[in-house]
Amino acid sequence: MNIGTINYRQRRNQLAKLLNGGVAVIHAFDHQVRSHDTEFPYRVNSDFKYLCGAEEPQGWLVIEDRGGVAHSTLFVRPKDAKMELWTGRRLGVEKAAQVFEMDACYAIDQFSEILPDLIADHETLFADFYDQSIQQSVLPIMQGLGNRRKNKTKTPHKINHIRGPLGHMRLIKCPAEIAAIDTAAIATSFGHQGAMAMAKDGLNERDILSFMEYLFARKGCTHTAYGSIVAGGDNALILHYVENDAPLKDGELILIDAGAEFDCYASDVTRTFPVGGSFTSAQKDIYQLVLNAQKDAMALAVPGNSLAQLHKKAQETLLKGLLDLNILKGTMDEHQEKNTLQNYYPHGTGHWLGLDVHDMCPYYNDQSEDILFKEGMIFTIEPGLYFQTYQSEIPKEYAHIGIRIEDDILITKDSHRNLTAMIPKEIKEVEEACQKDISSFYI
Amino acid sequence: MNIGTINYRQRRNQLAKLLNGGVAVIHAFDHQVRSHDTEFPYRVNSDFKYLCGAEEPQGWLVIEDRGGVAHSTLFVRPKDAKMELWTGRRLGVEKAAQVFEMDACYAIDQFSEILPDLIADHETLFADFYDQSIQQSVLPIMQGLGNRRKNKTKTPHKINHIRGPLGHMRLIKCPAEIAAIDTAAIATSFGHQGAMAMAKDGLNERDILSFMEYLFARKGCTHTAYGSIVAGGDNALILHYVENDAPLKDGELILIDAGAEFDCYASDVTRTFPVGGSFTSAQKDIYQLVLNAQKDAMALAVPGNSLAQLHKKAQETLLKGLLDLNILKGTMDEHQEKNTLQNYYPHGTGHWLGLDVHDMCPYYNDQSEDILFKEGMIFTIEPGLYFQTYQSEIPKEYAHIGIRIEDDILITKDSHRNLTAMIPKEIKEVEEACQKDISSFYI
Amino acid sequence: MNIGTINYRQRRNQLAKLLNGGVAVIHAFDHQVRSHDTEFPYRVNSDFKYLCGAEEPQGWLVIEDRGGVAHSTLFVRPKDAKMELWTGRRLGVEKAAQVFEMDACYAIDQFSEILPDLIADHETLFADFYDQSIQQSVLPIMQGLGNRRKNKTKTPHKINHIRGPLGHMRLIKCPAEIAAIDTAAIATSFGHQGAMAMAKDGLNERDILSFMEYLFARKGCTHTAYGSIVAGGDNALILHYVENDAPLKDGELILIDAGAEFDCYASDVTRTFPVGGSFTSAQKDIYQLVLNAQKDAMALAVPGNSLAQLHKKAQETLLKGLLDLNILKGTMDEHQEKNTLQNYYPHGTGHWLGLDVHDMCPYYNDQSEDILFKEGMIFTIEPGLYFQTYQSEIPKEYAHIGIRIEDDILITKDSHRNLTAMIPKEIKEVEEACQKDISSFYI
Amino acid sequence: MNIGTINYRQRRNQLAKLLNGGVAVIHAFDHQVRSHDTEFPYRVNSDFKYLCGAEEPQGWLVIEDRGGVAHSTLFVRPKDAKMELWTGRRLGVEKAAQVFEMDACYAIDQFSEILPDLIADHETLFADFYDQSIQQSVLPIMQGLGNRRKNKTKTPHKINHIRGPLGHMRLIKCPAEIAAIDTAAIATSFGHQGAMAMAKDGLNERDILSFMEYLFARKGCTHTAYGSIVAGGDNALILHYVENDAPLKDGELILIDAGAEFDCYASDVTRTFPVGGSFTSAQKDIYQLVLNAQKDAMALAVPGNSLAQLHKKAQETLLKGLLDLNILKGTMDEHQEKNTLQNYYPHGTGHWLGLDVHDMCPYYNDQSEDILFKEGMIFTIEPGLYFQTYQSEIPKEYAHIGIRIEDDILITKDSHRNLTAMIPKEIKEVEEACQKDISSFYI
Repeated sequence: MNIGTINYRQRRNQLAKLLNGGVAVIHAFDHQVRSHDTEFPYRVNSDFKYLCGAEEPQGWLVIEDRGGVAHSTLFVRPKDAKMELWTGRRLGVEKAAQVFEMDACYAIDQFSEILPDLIADHETLFADFYDQSIQQSVLPIMQGLGNRRKNKTKTPHKINHIRGPLGHMRLIKCPAEIAAIDTAAIATSFGHQGAMAMAKDGLNERDILSFMEYLFARKGCTHTAYGSIVAGGDNALILHYVENDAPLKDGELILIDAGAEFDCYASDVTRTFPVGGSFTSAQKDIYQLVLNAQKDAMALAVPGNSLAQLHKKAQETLLKGLLDLNILKGTMDEHQEKNTLQNYYPHGTGHWLGLDVHDMCPYYNDQSEDILFKEGMIFTIEPGLYFQTYQSEIPKEYAHIGIRIEDDILITKDSHRNLTAMIPKEIKEVEEACQKDISSFYI
Repeated sequence: MNIGTINYRQRRNQLAKLLNGGVAVIHAFDHQVRSHDTEFPYRVNSDFKYLCGAEEPQGWLVIEDRGGVAHSTLFVRPKDAKMELWTGRRLGVEKAAQVFEMDACYAIDQFSEILPDLIADHETLFADFYDQSIQQSVLPIMQGLGNRRKNKTKTPHKINHIRGPLGHMRLIKCPAEIAAIDTAAIATSFGHQGAMAMAKDGLNERDILSFMEYLFARKGCTHTAYGSIVAGGDNALILHYVENDAPLKDGELILIDAGAEFDCYASDVTRTFPVGGSFTSAQKDIYQLVLNAQKDAMALAVPGNSLAQLHKKAQETLLKGLLDLNILKGTMDEHQEKNTLQNYYPHGTGHWLGLDVHDMCPYYNDQSEDILFKEGMIFTIEPGLYFQTYQSEIPKEYAHIGIRIEDDILITKDSHRNLTAMIPKEIKEVEEACQKDISSFYI
Repeated sequence: MNIGTINYRQRRNQLAKLLNGGVAVIHAFDHQVRSHDTEFPYRVNSDFKYLCGAEEPQGWLVIEDRGGVAHSTLFVRPKDAKMELWTGRRLGVEKAAQVFEMDACYAIDQFSEILPDLIADHETLFADFYDQSIQQSVLPIMQGLGNRRKNKTKTPHKINHIRGPLGHMRLIKCPAEIAAIDTAAIATSFGHQGAMAMAKDGLNERDILSFMEYLFARKGCTHTAYGSIVAGGDNALILHYVENDAPLKDGELILIDAGAEFDCYASDVTRTFPVGGSFTSAQKDIYQLVLNAQKDAMALAVPGNSLAQLHKKAQETLLKGLLDLNILKGTMDEHQEKNTLQNYYPHGTGHWLGLDVHDMCPYYNDQSEDILFKEGMIFTIEPGLYFQTYQSEIPKEYAHIGIRIEDDILITKDSHRNLTAMIPKEIKEVEEACQKDISSFYI
Repeated sequence: MNIGTINYRQRRNQLAKLLNGGVAVIHAFDHQVRSHDTEFPYRVNSDFKYLCGAEEPQGWLVIEDRGGVAHSTLFVRPKDAKMELWTGRRLGVEKAAQVFEMDACYAIDQFSEILPDLIADHETLFADFYDQSIQQSVLPIMQGLGNRRKNKTKTPHKINHIRGPLGHMRLIKCPAEIAAIDTAAIATSFGHQGAMAMAKDGLNERDILSFMEYLFARKGCTHTAYGSIVAGGDNALILHYVENDAPLKDGELILIDAGAEFDCYASDVTRTFPVGGSFTSAQKDIYQLVLNAQKDAMALAVPGNSLAQLHKKAQETLLKGLLDLNILKGTMDEHQEKNTLQNYYPHGTGHWLGLDVHDMCPYYNDQSEDILFKEGMIFTIEPGLYFQTYQSEIPKEYAHIGIRIEDDILITKDSHRNLTAMIPKEIKEVEEACQKDISSFYI
């Protein structure tokens, strides 16, 4: 199958229809200072990337609905020999217009002069109204427009958050987007398998992490999709552990939640495995239970179901397993009523995945869990169990264990495809992967 | 007829229906510094006043549509003996709840704690999104709400400018509002007649102005509805003349555009009369022409017509008159095509009037001129002619003349009522008013 | 004596020396919205007025110390025929340069282009760093300057509040400034005497207030220096009473704290007198006591003393009087230790007066009370007594009484001059002034 | 020698003396969003780290000069079991007070309550007044303090940029700081040598870069000190090349400017070497010339000299070399007058190094080049030559060549120590390093 490339013009036309006569204004993000005069590596605003493919710092994209067809205007940094000597090559206005198939293109410093004509005659502005650049650069221009008395220009008097229409569009991935995530997944797989081969007593979490990131890069992914977690022992009990700087110890588990980003598309995978390569019996108990919960949830990943259903299923499997293992006493009903599981499984079972690791959808909060699956949606399934050190009701052999298993799932026409299935997760596979020689990753 | 008082609760219920499931947040304005630690006299936000009657500095009003019924919450300054000793009496939370018939009332410093629950579960926020207090105090709270992951709360993802629904409501005045403008008009009439009796060679524009404002106050109006204009001679050619500090000269005209404000409701009246009390022949020519234009326009002030029609009519009368007076040569058609009149009559013929002198309506710019008149609408009719000193094509005897005549018109069931008809404007009446003894205004 | 006019160039040179190699940037204030599209009457920033005499909205003034001599640059609104037709005459760039004797003058929209060269090579910026316009328009330009790597330009790395040097200068008034306050005092006197003649049972506080403001204007003062207080009966117990809308009642006192502003210079006077014209015996007791306190304090108004000393003296006289009148029981020492007087006299005895009613001085808070008097300083002396309605220890006949007497004092070479001495304050004089025919104020 | 650890208390006392009675307020930086709800890895404000060693997001540090002794107050995130489960472990208030040897410690949300007492009674605030958090969180509190009328509190009326005193302190590195940079240098050396061993035709710039960053991490450095540059061929002509994603080609040079960061301390090294491992004759010409320039400059790196002298020396060597190579015609004098070298060597020869790669010093711009070297100062020496593709005057064999060689130099008592001397730079050494087997870097 030829996955083709993204047809951005078509995508903007699709958006135009959802704007319903309105106009969308999107800012590309500025560089952000790390310290003094150094900056973090530039990451474009996902919405901007989604709608034109450009990664132009400080750029602006304006899309008008003109009768169901998008009229698109891009603002970019102009050509400037001296600036380019110092800060890098620029496409410039004319080239950018061509490359990104724009109806019009200007230098960024013309934004406040050109914008009024682009937003006039539209009732609704679509924008991220929480973004300071919208509040400080767009709203004053819009207000000024409303004060021009001597004309019959309509000006926007409604601001809809851009996540409404874009959230709907971004939920369904096209073949080229799926291909990008597949590419990210290949890098992620390489990284996780490298980590399994490498981990051993005495190494530091950061050794593993940096090796994974190196392997990601060798597969074309120079950034991770989110702050990686490499958590040995009870560090796994901190859900967003960021230190990643403790030594690994034989016999302990190591939980790795890390995914590569390719062309701004995220993968998001968690694996948990034993330092030294062999699960203890207690570790196996819990690991298998979490794996069962993931599989049970994944079985429901078909068109028409929802994340809420998968979460419910994962919770049931986990709770039942804890009772079977005698870690909890009593009945399912009792514990469901008391919401006992929340103590050991405090997070959700999945989230949307795409240009962002927690991908945009049109709804807020847990409402997004009720969206019905359709072909082209991608999300994670990531049950876990965490026995905190202060939870004295947990039998000694299970204390301190933290396990999570996470894969990335694409809904297909009738079922699903696990995009990260190639990363070992069966107990036996994992133990084998841990035995693998690290030199096979030196390419 | 008993005009009764305003039923604010009913008004808020009317708004609730227009909110269509949304929630409105309105800020009352802060005090504004005049210099160092002195402040301008406090003027509340008109929208805030309109919806609850309170004039509470820094207050917040939140109105939710709960199934077509308003649920209203007010935030006011709490009782505080020490603060009240220094800065004046306060109603306080409990009393305010009663007086303003609120469903809930809190101290202002609880705003950020209480607001989340008031805006949750509404899709649309109605607010003045250009107001810094909305951008800085409301949007961050709304954004924070969107990030609470563990609940199914909807949060607003649309912000509609409050002028949409409120503009529709404020266009139609209820009997109590009309009574307020009638009261303002009485004061305005007293002031303008006092000015006519007072004006004489040697006095300063500011003497007239301050006497008018004194007379306004004696009729209960301590503020003007806008910056008054008292313009002798060619100062009348500056449309928004603000200096008001030149000496008056016999034989020159004086143009006064000043209106009293009563209970936050505006009147807006312009009269032009001769210093000394007698129009010259040339002054009469132009004055009568402007007066005719005003009458012609006023004749069209009936339900179903529009400000655009009145403007067209006034322009026709003025243009024809200038041709008849031989000030312009040529034909109507020629001049209409060249838009010649714009040089001598550069402004519009009327605007909505109410809590603001340029009253809010739901449309922007000249769109508002196309609104069809309905019973209860109030607007001004104010044609004028201004011969600039540099317009050498104007015959010498007319040079420097600036005249405007403005009244406040209420649309009634079948016709209109001129709320400011008692202020002299026929040439003879005006000359008589100028002869009146000023002592009759010393009450 | 010829008071002459202000030599602004000399004044800026004086500032330059205090800048000690630095550069001062001062913003003239913007217009402030009252409601919708109406604005409050424009009041310029006092510092801007002080240093160039201009009252140019949105203007900027930059003064560099160039070797002990000021180099001054002004930014003003440029000439613009169309804008001037609508919003009033403008001096324009060339004329402003001449009139205000500037070394350089530009249109406001050139500010960000020109400022870098004006602040470069100065170590210290003097500005009101709390002003949003400084934070938003000046600091980013200054920061940008620091980043130009390829030159040896020094840029400011210190920001001193402009109140330091300007506070020192503004403390000492020159003859032209004293003349301005004298003019304001004449208007204030006329107003207070008019109020005494007018006040009678049945009139409203606002009638008195508006008549006073009219009389101020007739003497050339179109603004008050601060929010006037006209407080009948127990309204006098609210120190900053702003409502001014209650009816007056025979037998009650009326406290009026109101002062005219002339050419931006303030006067500040309080008188208290009986509605109806005759003090009761109890009113006389307290009035005379407050008057004595004022006189005792005033006697100390000579070079070398301080506001702190005057305050101490006024407090002593008041406390002793309350003991003598048997309103308080016990000894001076006891009450001084318990600070009893604070309950009846909660405010200070004086403050600096000039371009602002609470005039700028280089120190904050009560430190300013320790400044030693020098020729040319102007301040108020304003003792008072207020018996709150809830202070049940006060004998019935004195309950509800609020009295304050305030004059404006200029320190002379050896003593002082009371600039507002012509306003009646002896009991007999006040009663006579109340009997005067109001018609004598109709000029 | 035992390098010991940093005595932060002593350091704060040293600062206190420079505050000269003032108070310093320093903010630790917030997390910065990368995309949607993901963040960049946290980097603390260098000044904050320098003065207490903590890396506490959102923290505040306040240091008062109390008679030449520092009184230090820290604001940190409080203990919070639920938040720590999600976002990581926290030291909490009590522990932080101990660990960072604070005189007082509070939770961050008490900042606005506690700050007034900390800044009162100090005339000068030292802060980064360009920082939004200072403008928005500190200045309003300071202004409020100035308005408290009833006390004699002095409040700051001067704001000095903290870079004044801190710039002086940070210029001189203590043994523990030198040790940190030595550690960073070891990692940097490992990385550069790994890059030399790895680079070959067909690999991508990013392969080299990611391998270097992996090697940095294996030596304990998880971040680079600045955005790395790995520039093959004519990408080296872009001074701040950031793409790092082009394939390498045999025979071309590769310029790598990359340095590891250890405990927030920077190293900064550039090496240029041939893909394939052998310099061409033309490459050797230019490389040797740049190396000579670096050595000539480095010979001047002794106490009492300055960066300006080193720059002048490097320029002379380069210019003379270009004449000797016949790349330029004419005389030294002619070219120095025309500043010809600027075309091929547009940047400076060195900059200070420390917590920031362009380390803070008390002066701005090129003034910092005049600072006289003292023991403990660290800086880079980095001459280069860049023949742009459009510079047609350059002989064909040299066109497209871009070379820079950069080391980190510590001034010692009598001379200097090159902290990065172990990284190959002689032509022969470099060629040997390129031949090395990459497997020796797999540790």
